[in-house]
Amino acid sequence: MLLTNADVDHIGGLLNLRESSSFRLLATPMIQDVLSGSPIFEVLNPDYVSREPIALDQSFALLEGLQARLFAVPGKTALYLEGDQVEIGVEGESTVGVELISGDKRAYYIPGCAAMTPALAARLDGADLLLFDGTLWRDDEMVRAGVGHKTGQRMGHMSMSGEDGSIAALAELSLGQRVFVHINNTNPVLIEDSSERQTAERDGWEIAYDGMELSC
Amino acid sequence: MLLTNADVDHIGGLLNLRESSSFRLLATPMIQDVLSGSPIFEVLNPDYVSREPIALDQSFALLEGLQARLFAVPGKTALYLEGDQVEIGVEGESTVGVELISGDKRAYYIPGCAAMTPALAARLDGADLLLFDGTLWRDDEMVRAGVGHKTGQRMGHMSMSGEDGSIAALAELSLGQRVFVHINNTNPVLIEDSSERQTAERDGWEIAYDGMELSC
Repeated sequence: MLLTNADVDHIGGLLNLRESSSFRLLATPMIQDVLSGSPIFEVLNPDYVSREPIALDQSFALLEGLQARLFAVPGKTALYLEGDQVEIGVEGESTVGVELISGDKRAYYIPGCAAMTPALAARLDGADLLLFDGTLWRDDEMVRAGVGHKTGQRMGHMSMSGEDGSIAALAELSLGQRVFVHINNTNPVLIEDSSERQTAERDGWEIAYDGMELSC
Repeated sequence: MLLTNADVDHIGGLLNLRESSSFRLLATPMIQDVLSGSPIFEVLNPDYVSREPIALDQSFALLEGLQARLFAVPGKTALYLEGDQVEIGVEGESTVGVELISGDKRAYYIPGCAAMTPALAARLDGADLLLFDGTLWRDDEMVRAGVGHKTGQRMGHMSMSGEDGSIAALAELSLGQRVFVHINNTNPVLIEDSSERQTAERDGWEIAYDGMELSC
């Protein structure tokens, strides 16, 4: 189990694996501290679950034949740890991407990202596969749908569309396959015959679905 | 939202109500302290969720026309708060039942109970409706099914069957309706044509199901 974020949508499911499921629980030291700070996660029995802190920018063996590396991306602290001042777009151990390397293939998993930086674009360029933050289509989508008062930016997510959106920001990169993941239920790309879906697909993106299998 | 226990199966669902669901969160001071002790529950925005400590044995208005009262039943501390020594069957603020009174009708909701005591039996006698802990059919059921190493007693639950079971312990009471709730997925009463289901029904019990509505 590899965590890239300490927000509830990333860690809440751990409670369903309680007591006697056996697995390694890998995350940055900061995310491990967040888990340790909430005693409810003690339901993960240490006889079965090893909590392993993973330093940023260090390669480690995730599975046999699969090397991984965590790296900081622009993000924000978990919602329930926010103070009065929230800094959006900071890079640190709270929001990370994963580099996956097997043989000469290279893939990235980045389910949350507040902005594209030149350094991040340079890192991704030439990858065989990118799984990227597809939370919202447009920044004020949840406000317009009447289901929330927060923008995507406020939640630490860049949107798909627009000049600063991920489709435009990544358009010039050489990528074998580009797939949106972590898609909010307000995002119209989930609707198969929507114009937004057509736009994303025309620009070379696939929309992830439950049970999707990828190879490269 | 009224909590009778701080174990994950009672409080984990709160995380699905995060951010902007509006409700009162009622529980004993001890259970409120357990929630406060895990910062992940800060996702329940205090602008929408009021956390109200409810003292044992004090009547309070749960809804208009519905009075409630919490009372201690034999139980144990939540799994993730267990120390090296676990005391089973203690009575305190960690495992409680709910008395519900509307007009001249009286009902009880007790989803976890480690043992029947004379005082508890006396309290329940004459009620119009009882919803009671139906976790296991027999104490070693999970061990025999190979899905766990714990007995019902170790988890703080009395079983349905046997001399010390809830069916026998409550048989002599006068109860308008008796319904098993909080039923584990290993319990054969969930199987409609099982002999255990027939036994429970012959002894006057109903087996609760999702969406069940009750009136008395």
